[in-house]
Amino acid sequence: MKQAILIYGATAMGTPEFSADLLWRTGGYSVPDPVIFCEIDGKKTLLLSSLEIERGEREAKVDEVVSIEKYVEEAKRSSLPISVLFLKERGIEEVIVPGIIRFSLGKVLSDHFTVTIKSPPFYPERAIKTDKEIGQIEGAQRAVEKAVDEGIRFLKECIVNNDLLFHSEFPDAPITSHHVRKIIDDALYLRGYLGVESIVACGREATDPHCKGYGNIKPKEPIVLDIFPRSLDSLYFADQTRTVFKGEPSDKLKRMYNTVLEAQEMAICEVKSGAQGKDIDQKVRDFFDKSGYPTNIAKRPVSGFIHSLGHGVGIEIHEEPSLSQRDSVLETGNIVTVEPGLYYPEETSTIPMGGIRIEDMILVTENGNRNLTQFPKSLDEMIIV
Amino acid sequence: MKQAILIYGATAMGTPEFSADLLWRTGGYSVPDPVIFCEIDGKKTLLLSSLEIERGEREAKVDEVVSIEKYVEEAKRSSLPISVLFLKERGIEEVIVPGIIRFSLGKVLSDHFTVTIKSPPFYPERAIKTDKEIGQIEGAQRAVEKAVDEGIRFLKECIVNNDLLFHSEFPDAPITSHHVRKIIDDALYLRGYLGVESIVACGREATDPHCKGYGNIKPKEPIVLDIFPRSLDSLYFADQTRTVFKGEPSDKLKRMYNTVLEAQEMAICEVKSGAQGKDIDQKVRDFFDKSGYPTNIAKRPVSGFIHSLGHGVGIEIHEEPSLSQRDSVLETGNIVTVEPGLYYPEETSTIPMGGIRIEDMILVTENGNRNLTQFPKSLDEMIIV
Repeated sequence: MKQAILIYGATAMGTPEFSADLLWRTGGYSVPDPVIFCEIDGKKTLLLSSLEIERGEREAKVDEVVSIEKYVEEAKRSSLPISVLFLKERGIEEVIVPGIIRFSLGKVLSDHFTVTIKSPPFYPERAIKTDKEIGQIEGAQRAVEKAVDEGIRFLKECIVNNDLLFHSEFPDAPITSHHVRKIIDDALYLRGYLGVESIVACGREATDPHCKGYGNIKPKEPIVLDIFPRSLDSLYFADQTRTVFKGEPSDKLKRMYNTVLEAQEMAICEVKSGAQGKDIDQKVRDFFDKSGYPTNIAKRPVSGFIHSLGHGVGIEIHEEPSLSQRDSVLETGNIVTVEPGLYYPEETSTIPMGGIRIEDMILVTENGNRNLTQFPKSLDEMIIV
Repeated sequence: MKQAILIYGATAMGTPEFSADLLWRTGGYSVPDPVIFCEIDGKKTLLLSSLEIERGEREAKVDEVVSIEKYVEEAKRSSLPISVLFLKERGIEEVIVPGIIRFSLGKVLSDHFTVTIKSPPFYPERAIKTDKEIGQIEGAQRAVEKAVDEGIRFLKECIVNNDLLFHSEFPDAPITSHHVRKIIDDALYLRGYLGVESIVACGREATDPHCKGYGNIKPKEPIVLDIFPRSLDSLYFADQTRTVFKGEPSDKLKRMYNTVLEAQEMAICEVKSGAQGKDIDQKVRDFFDKSGYPTNIAKRPVSGFIHSLGHGVGIEIHEEPSLSQRDSVLETGNIVTVEPGLYYPEETSTIPMGGIRIEDMILVTENGNRNLTQFPKSLDEMIIV
């Protein structure tokens, strides 16, 4: 059967039906409305409207750009979508699509072709980063480090009063997550990166890993800074988490911090070509269990190590490969986060209330790995006085 | 048949499978990874993982939040997705989904239920803006106006030398689109809005309506400023285009500018409850034709009025209703752009080389309409000296 790969999607930032696969496969071609992209016998074709065709020809790294205008009349007459007309003209019998293609299109294609949903990842090669991509991700990571530096400098300037933080620039009200997030996000933006939903979460809020943080920053409690900006130019991400304290935390928090750090360093050593993501994830789970930090997701509020260990980073903040409970083998050129965390909304005799997460980005190399994150993480450097 | 409406999507900015419908229907609930949302007998249910459940209960405006954990074991055993298990448990026979739901999910649902794709718009009520939404869009529009003011002030400060623009802050090289875009985007960001792909396109580049602009800004040529930022908080958009000139343009350009302005003002008068979008669009087409500005999309390079007249604006930059060649009836509470444009890559004896577009946002009111755009647009105010 004559086959075509088909993607339908847009590639400009924040567009509906954004397709990272399309952006990657067309070499960074940016288009705000969804377009049809095909690969037939290894030849890449973009179908574009008259509005997009000239720019597409200049900017998209494809073999052929086809104007949809020639199909418009026939599409009206036959009530068939242009993609179907084009594929029939090329003698296609089987169409291979990503599972996230829109259902309405998949259904129509199914009326005319054998349609095969390719299990993700659609382009497994996307997980093997080129030198250019590594540079883009490292660029984003440098911006994260500068921005978190500025956030920490701001916290250093704060004074503690009545169990709250105050800063001379904001004399009227105590410092909240919003103040710190704005400093970090502004520093990112200045460098060409967008921090969306940057996490600055303190105390009880930090025990929910996806809470971006709203309330007062409190002294001696963990402040989780999870910063994952996207380049406004290349759309590549970086991802880093640090947990800091304004003033010396309790011994229980110190012990929990160092347990997470030990777990992270142990896990990073396991990141190498050929390793199974789920083995590394499990190793961390076992380590936390035997260190006295149990995980409980059956009982509310959930507690312990309640998310997976890590994920690939690239054009998407979560992409292949995965360090979680599913199969995923690491290869040279992968970039993955390693981000163990412990979250306890309720204090016990040995476990403090609080959330702690530490996250670096690791490049899998031929001889092991390279840590792309250069930010300090030892406990003494995380205590801001 | 017992029915359920089902949406699968995420709502944080820039996430894959972003669903504006879900964000709208859950009252602004932000979640970074796709989740399942159902409506059964008018009751709204969110299915969330243990990671998201507590925040979901606090933040989502739904009637019920269900933990997916209770289905995980059965899902593994049966190889059925959690959505299928949940819907079967609730006795559902028919599932109504948006056409953009992922194909792989639509297919599995089809194995177990009657699946009906609802033609867009999925929630037609989304096009009727509440006072709160109007306020959010007007807030974004005010930011656009401030930002474009700053861009124009910068152009005013430029001096012309050798058919190029220079500014004292950048003494080494002539001013390009990038300089002006950065000033506008920074002004937007400062106010909490993100300009993505803001268009600052001059001369030949301005003849391609989707070209964001890269090259030198030239005196006396049209500079299209199409600015459509999104609130980093509410995710609502605004959208405005102005075409400005550094120095007095040719008479041919002046005549073309005033023709576009006349078309726009004529079209705005037609925006009212009960009007057909395609009638207004056609009226502008006819006006351009009889004013001596023909449209040609069959011959490359395309020229004339090569896009539609306008679109709804809200959580998506392009949403319902539409002022284009398709059916779309305006209703009180709609917010639409009115943005006629003319684009000629090649000069003739009567038509200049260049692109001109003028765009305002119009709210349909009970008694006609209200122009949400307060930025000047008369030709003399568009000439920067």
